[in-house]
Amino acid sequence: MFEARLVKGSLLKNVLDAIKDLLKQASWDCADSGIQLQAMDSSHVSLVSVNLKAEGFDKYRCDRNLIMGMDLSSMSKILKCAANDDIITMKAQDNADTVTFMFESPNQEKVSDYEMKLMNLDQEHLGIPETQYACVVKMPSAEFARICRDLSNFGESICIACTKEGIKFYAAGDIGTANIKLAQTTSVDKEDAVIIDLQEPVTLTFSCHYLNMFIKATPLSQQVSLSMSPDVPLVVEYTIHDLGHIQYFLAPKIGENDS
Amino acid sequence: MFEARLVKGSLLKNVLDAIKDLLKQASWDCADSGIQLQAMDSSHVSLVSVNLKAEGFDKYRCDRNLIMGMDLSSMSKILKCAANDDIITMKAQDNADTVTFMFESPNQEKVSDYEMKLMNLDQEHLGIPETQYACVVKMPSAEFARICRDLSNFGESICIACTKEGIKFYAAGDIGTANIKLAQTTSVDKEDAVIIDLQEPVTLTFSCHYLNMFIKATPLSQQVSLSMSPDVPLVVEYTIHDLGHIQYFLAPKIGENDS
Amino acid sequence: MFEARLVKGSLLKNVLDAIKDLLKQASWDCADSGIQLQAMDSSHVSLVSVNLKAEGFDKYRCDRNLIMGMDLSSMSKILKCAANDDIITMKAQDNADTVTFMFESPNQEKVSDYEMKLMNLDQEHLGIPETQYACVVKMPSAEFARICRDLSNFGESICIACTKEGIKFYAAGDIGTANIKLAQTTSVDKEDAVIIDLQEPVTLTFSCHYLNMFIKATPLSQQVSLSMSPDVPLVVEYTIHDLGHIQYFLAPKIGENDS
Repeated sequence: MFEARLVKGSLLKNVLDAIKDLLKQASWDCADSGIQLQAMDSSHVSLVSVNLKAEGFDKYRCDRNLIMGMDLSSMSKILKCAANDDIITMKAQDNADTVTFMFESPNQEKVSDYEMKLMNLDQEHLGIPETQYACVVKMPSAEFARICRDLSNFGESICIACTKEGIKFYAAGDIGTANIKLAQTTSVDKEDAVIIDLQEPVTLTFSCHYLNMFIKATPLSQQVSLSMSPDVPLVVEYTIHDLGHIQYFLAPKIGENDS
Repeated sequence: MFEARLVKGSLLKNVLDAIKDLLKQASWDCADSGIQLQAMDSSHVSLVSVNLKAEGFDKYRCDRNLIMGMDLSSMSKILKCAANDDIITMKAQDNADTVTFMFESPNQEKVSDYEMKLMNLDQEHLGIPETQYACVVKMPSAEFARICRDLSNFGESICIACTKEGIKFYAAGDIGTANIKLAQTTSVDKEDAVIIDLQEPVTLTFSCHYLNMFIKATPLSQQVSLSMSPDVPLVVEYTIHDLGHIQYFLAPKIGENDS
Repeated sequence: MFEARLVKGSLLKNVLDAIKDLLKQASWDCADSGIQLQAMDSSHVSLVSVNLKAEGFDKYRCDRNLIMGMDLSSMSKILKCAANDDIITMKAQDNADTVTFMFESPNQEKVSDYEMKLMNLDQEHLGIPETQYACVVKMPSAEFARICRDLSNFGESICIACTKEGIKFYAAGDIGTANIKLAQTTSVDKEDAVIIDLQEPVTLTFSCHYLNMFIKATPLSQQVSLSMSPDVPLVVEYTIHDLGHIQYFLAPKIGENDS
């Protein structure tokens, strides 16, 4: 028996919005410690990793490990039927081939059950090595989203350069060139601060297309963190308050890192 | 001479929004007692009935009975030119072949006249028998609209089952199955109550397509009423505050009522 | 060296929105007194004239006259990257072939530079004769925009008739006829007043298509002024608070002025 109940059900809706355009299908690994999902996007360029801790749920029970393969666009259609203030519960029997999503309205007068078939998906086991990054930037997630969208008008790549002073985003194309500089914030305790933890300066170039997929996670967190080192994938991470996090990995473009 | 003046002109805009997708053309029957419209939708499956009482208008005069055939999409285009706080007056001469819509701004500084040609439409006389229904459910109109929209993602039909305890909506399709239960509210005086008046339990199946047309009347009323009996058409009714009502009739699908 | 800094940068965004659908490319004439743009729309029917006074900028420097030919859709894409509360600065070196747009966030923590190639455009010199108009109407810009949009549903032309009593807009087409009358306001000091300065009554007919282009300037000003005389172009003017104005010129349709 697997059961996970989340009073703030809108978080699960947001998680689906954050991954459904990148992943058509994926397996949720349910264990005693929580729920995990790891998958390459359909064109095998970026990697998505979702981690929802058992303690983050309002009720959590997982009698034996369970791998639930799901069509994420179907799951997303089901979650769209939950109101933003609904309590969401996921349920599955051991060895079942279906999962049930239950939505309860706060006043308990409306209860909806949606049952969906599970799928057998090939499991890719993806080791993500622990890395010490040359540079970790924390910044407001809405600002990062806006910059990715704005620079997409100028070219297919965004070059990110990070120094002690700040972080710079650069793009070039037919219209012209664009250059956005964010200074490191002096007061670091504000939620909209730009905080740079730098071992050495880094300049890397990434595909706009994938960055614009990642920023769909913006509603999950006010802050995003970008971890970068030369020649290793960028990590774009959004924490999900009290519940876990979602991470996106994207390798830099080669030979384009000097502008 | 026919003249009907409505200070809350937005109600007439809402009435048109509620019928214009279902009916391309229709006749308004104007008499001393008020204005009526009855017509089958273009595919002759559902029936729409609008009733606007003379007393509901701020001024009403109808010297002799008048049947005004109108192209409803043209009428709707004209009414879209009225601001939400405009006073709307409909006017026609006896035996005229045009109708005039006059819109007055609340401060009287803007007055608009729109003249539209009338049409000769075949009159279908549709007797709607008075029926004693096995079950009448009153519920918030926004909730009913949401359920119809949500379940349309799962299949082409919605099964409605009503018992003393509550009302259940069910749909099934490729994605999976969906099941929404609303409990009867204990305190019946709230506007968002679910109130069930039951002679006997009923289970009937209806086409999503038509239900989704009917819910365009949602802005007219906070409450909707569903009247059901085995083998007779469902009645979906919205009252129009102080002015009348709009009713939609839809026959149940046969042989699909058991799920 | 040319430099123009505008703390209320959203005004420049609005100016671009007001001209970019009418003009694909245009030259900005920069001089000591300010910036001007004059151009016929792409189909050579209407004329646009923008005037931004040097004093209206928060900093203005223009060492020598400069003509900057720009692709306005590129310029518009760049300005869309400025937040509404950003400070915008335009900069160019003498004889340069690029222009730079700098956007500074109010807290100075984000600074963006966009560089765009300039173009060599054929210069048309357009003399706009000073005219004494038979009739000048000031009215709320939002009301004028609404009337142009509403009447576009009825025909391709709008007839404007102005008398001492008020201003009348008329359109006719397949659906029927539409007639909108605005009375002159008695208290003239309100911002939403309709004020008519009349030498003689005027009735003129204009193309809806172009009027609907002009109303894209509506966000620039709460008031619009319409100047009309028989057989000369209509002037639709929006003042840009403390900065200048934008004018549109459109010749009346011939032989359609009597309805």
